[in-house]
Amino acid sequence: MDKKKISVAVIKRLPRYYRYLGDLLDNGIVRISSGELSKRMNVTASQIRQDLNKFGCFGQQGYGYNVETLYEEIGKILGLDKQYQIIIIGAGNLGQALANYGNFKKRGFNFVAMFDIDPTIIGHELHGIKVQDISSLDVYLSKNDIDIAVLSLPKQNAAKIADVLAKNGVKGIWNFSHIDLHMPADVTVENVHLTDSLMTLSYKISKNRHNYVVEDEED
Amino acid sequence: MDKKKISVAVIKRLPRYYRYLGDLLDNGIVRISSGELSKRMNVTASQIRQDLNKFGCFGQQGYGYNVETLYEEIGKILGLDKQYQIIIIGAGNLGQALANYGNFKKRGFNFVAMFDIDPTIIGHELHGIKVQDISSLDVYLSKNDIDIAVLSLPKQNAAKIADVLAKNGVKGIWNFSHIDLHMPADVTVENVHLTDSLMTLSYKISKNRHNYVVEDEED
Repeated sequence: MDKKKISVAVIKRLPRYYRYLGDLLDNGIVRISSGELSKRMNVTASQIRQDLNKFGCFGQQGYGYNVETLYEEIGKILGLDKQYQIIIIGAGNLGQALANYGNFKKRGFNFVAMFDIDPTIIGHELHGIKVQDISSLDVYLSKNDIDIAVLSLPKQNAAKIADVLAKNGVKGIWNFSHIDLHMPADVTVENVHLTDSLMTLSYKISKNRHNYVVEDEED
Repeated sequence: MDKKKISVAVIKRLPRYYRYLGDLLDNGIVRISSGELSKRMNVTASQIRQDLNKFGCFGQQGYGYNVETLYEEIGKILGLDKQYQIIIIGAGNLGQALANYGNFKKRGFNFVAMFDIDPTIIGHELHGIKVQDISSLDVYLSKNDIDIAVLSLPKQNAAKIADVLAKNGVKGIWNFSHIDLHMPADVTVENVHLTDSLMTLSYKISKNRHNYVVEDEED
């Protein structure tokens, strides 16, 4: 069967659809029209119909979309119908915050180990996850099938650790280190550069002070 | 003086330029050619020249860019030449991780207070910042000039708190709650939706399993 084509822009909107549909489900809402979803999500109804039709989720005239079906279909596209084994590299505040975030587990993301260099926490459990010595990372990876590694360690060590991960078959890296990683083609990196995000905010709240105007402002 | 026009796409690239230039400065590098910067940043040299010329940062033939001048100029555009007073709403692991992140302070972001509903931490200091009762938020805001509030609290309370912030003159919200906020036009929201980011990663590492191909893959 030929695969259907889809654009990056649509893919990027899917997690947001999924989040809104999950909220609707939690509130016991069974069906929703593109118009109503449009109001809640602050995008046009025609955009919604266009996006969702791409996935074969056709709304029915006078009925709208079945929330649960749509939620499950988008979940499948996002890969949320399987379980992921995740390790966290760097057991500081950020690593612990991610390990402790309950919603991830509900969606099939299982945090199974943390690694650190700090001898005062190695061997201890943090949020139910044992902290292991970073020097045992390659041995651990040779014995365990890990899908995703979170990099929440200082940038100085991030590239070296990322290489160890890639060599040992980890296919996804969720990168919180303030460095851009250059990885082999079969390794996917998703960056969360918090400093970049805060700077974008400071740009926006101070932009009236300087001599530039944004010509194609969004939202 | 007429303001220069600039696109959102260029603005979005500035924090990354700033990060790379900061690394160069830290390594004692005084000047850099667009070609060398291009190699490091994995964007074309002509893109770099185009972007930077917009800000009047012209490289000189045979010399390249002065790293420090360029760093400072971009810093000014990003609003990093002033100090920001920031409060954190929600003193859990994530709020603490942000409070404890040293690099922010270096760039002029001062975390001055945390707020929470948990009586066991109210009144205590976490990472040198006193945790205050969320019920005193409006009184606090009436006495203190706060530029940015971090929302690192559960989504159930996020919208209500955001309203209190907006009514009391807070102009920037750094939103980690898994909810889209609808704020007045003079309040800027920068979202970090961690669940959306993790789902984008799971989509990418599992995309070969389903029947869609991305037609305009980036990076």
